[in-house]
Amino acid sequence: MIFIGERINAGFKDIKRAIQEKDPEPIRKRAREQTEAGADYLDVNMGTASNKPEDLCWMIETVQEVSDLPISIDNNKPTLIKAALPICRKPPLINSLTADEAKLDEMLPVIKEYDASFIGLVMDEAGSPKDANKRGENAGRIVAKIMEYDIEPDHLFLDPIVMPLKFMQEQAVEIMSAASQFRLFTDPPCHIVCGLSNVSNGTKHKGLINRTFAAMLVANGLDAVICDVRDEELVDTVLTAELFMNKQIYADSYIEAFRK
Amino acid sequence: MIFIGERINAGFKDIKRAIQEKDPEPIRKRAREQTEAGADYLDVNMGTASNKPEDLCWMIETVQEVSDLPISIDNNKPTLIKAALPICRKPPLINSLTADEAKLDEMLPVIKEYDASFIGLVMDEAGSPKDANKRGENAGRIVAKIMEYDIEPDHLFLDPIVMPLKFMQEQAVEIMSAASQFRLFTDPPCHIVCGLSNVSNGTKHKGLINRTFAAMLVANGLDAVICDVRDEELVDTVLTAELFMNKQIYADSYIEAFRK
Repeated sequence: MIFIGERINAGFKDIKRAIQEKDPEPIRKRAREQTEAGADYLDVNMGTASNKPEDLCWMIETVQEVSDLPISIDNNKPTLIKAALPICRKPPLINSLTADEAKLDEMLPVIKEYDASFIGLVMDEAGSPKDANKRGENAGRIVAKIMEYDIEPDHLFLDPIVMPLKFMQEQAVEIMSAASQFRLFTDPPCHIVCGLSNVSNGTKHKGLINRTFAAMLVANGLDAVICDVRDEELVDTVLTAELFMNKQIYADSYIEAFRK
Repeated sequence: MIFIGERINAGFKDIKRAIQEKDPEPIRKRAREQTEAGADYLDVNMGTASNKPEDLCWMIETVQEVSDLPISIDNNKPTLIKAALPICRKPPLINSLTADEAKLDEMLPVIKEYDASFIGLVMDEAGSPKDANKRGENAGRIVAKIMEYDIEPDHLFLDPIVMPLKFMQEQAVEIMSAASQFRLFTDPPCHIVCGLSNVSNGTKHKGLINRTFAAMLVANGLDAVICDVRDEELVDTVLTAELFMNKQIYADSYIEAFRK
């Protein structure tokens, strides 16, 4: 499982204030925490706190002061992404693009130049898809573009777009069905990722809902997740689910080995 | 989800002693506990403690003194099952038959006479299947027999046969794949059941392993489970997984509603 640690996000007050006051410490703290918890990427999102390239670059550099992990650039603006790419010490993950072909044409050559990966949200100009077929159609348009630009499938993370259980309950089966189809689109298969916390929006049993859906998505091919890696129950569930998918060899101490 | 409470089993010392000493109290206690925890059936298994029909009947009558739930007769001997069927106050579940056609020919008319349901383990004379295809083939033989005897699909609980993660890790994907196929064998679909605890045999993180696999199996069609219904984390996971399958309508208090 590829864990993309989501906590360095200006949607949280500590990070928003850090950006506004150029105080590196809250960002360093969250970067250290996610790294120690076992993240594979650190997601950096400045939300509405700023739209200046220099602020995004400052955030990334601050993270890189305390962590060797690659960055997930959580921004969809080409100018910002292009400014951030050169300062990433390791090939980053772009979070995210959609099935907008003009934007893919603009960004994929740059992504390839930096050996970056990207999350392809299976939505288009018409908005978020309502069923598995539309998700598959949009995924197909993204996959066609990576072929056109000769980008390896393992540099693409398709995101079936998780919807809130509470408000769009009927979407869950569509999301699972779409994910299971995505595995078949390329050979080798691309990654399948989701931003998990959206599924429990507005619910009372958030942790339970997040980790249960995570296990069900792993059964349908999910191999990357954007989450707070400090959620040990979620991480334990995902590690266990991957054993059942035969992606890791079972050992009695598989949980303890990850914590080290 | 159909919960089949597994605790009234002579594999446990308290029940074994109860049978040997004809002490009804331990059986009553376990029957009450599973009933209060939310079981739909109470599984009654006398294991190696006895092979006498009167002992099995005594166990069932003891359970029926304290619970209105239907019985799951956990025994594969035709003489014992035939003795137990007439004393069940509600149509029971026979746990279990296999793809042994001679035995199905013997038992299905009796099962139909009592309006009973049965678990069809997808194994045959050759033993337990090693892959999804063999599981599907054996399931097909059982399904053909219920058609021959005009038994409704909802009276059949197909069991893909759960294997221990620790010793047969590669079986998990075969089990999930088989379960997802079983849904398509009849219309309306038959039930899909498993004895869950087998999957965590010999492991250190039993509860986590059981409930994670349960969520993954629900994603593949599981709608019945043999388990200790007092395992609240397992039950919560299964209830949540069923929301994602759109089998229950979401409510903020779905866990609390079940506990009542």
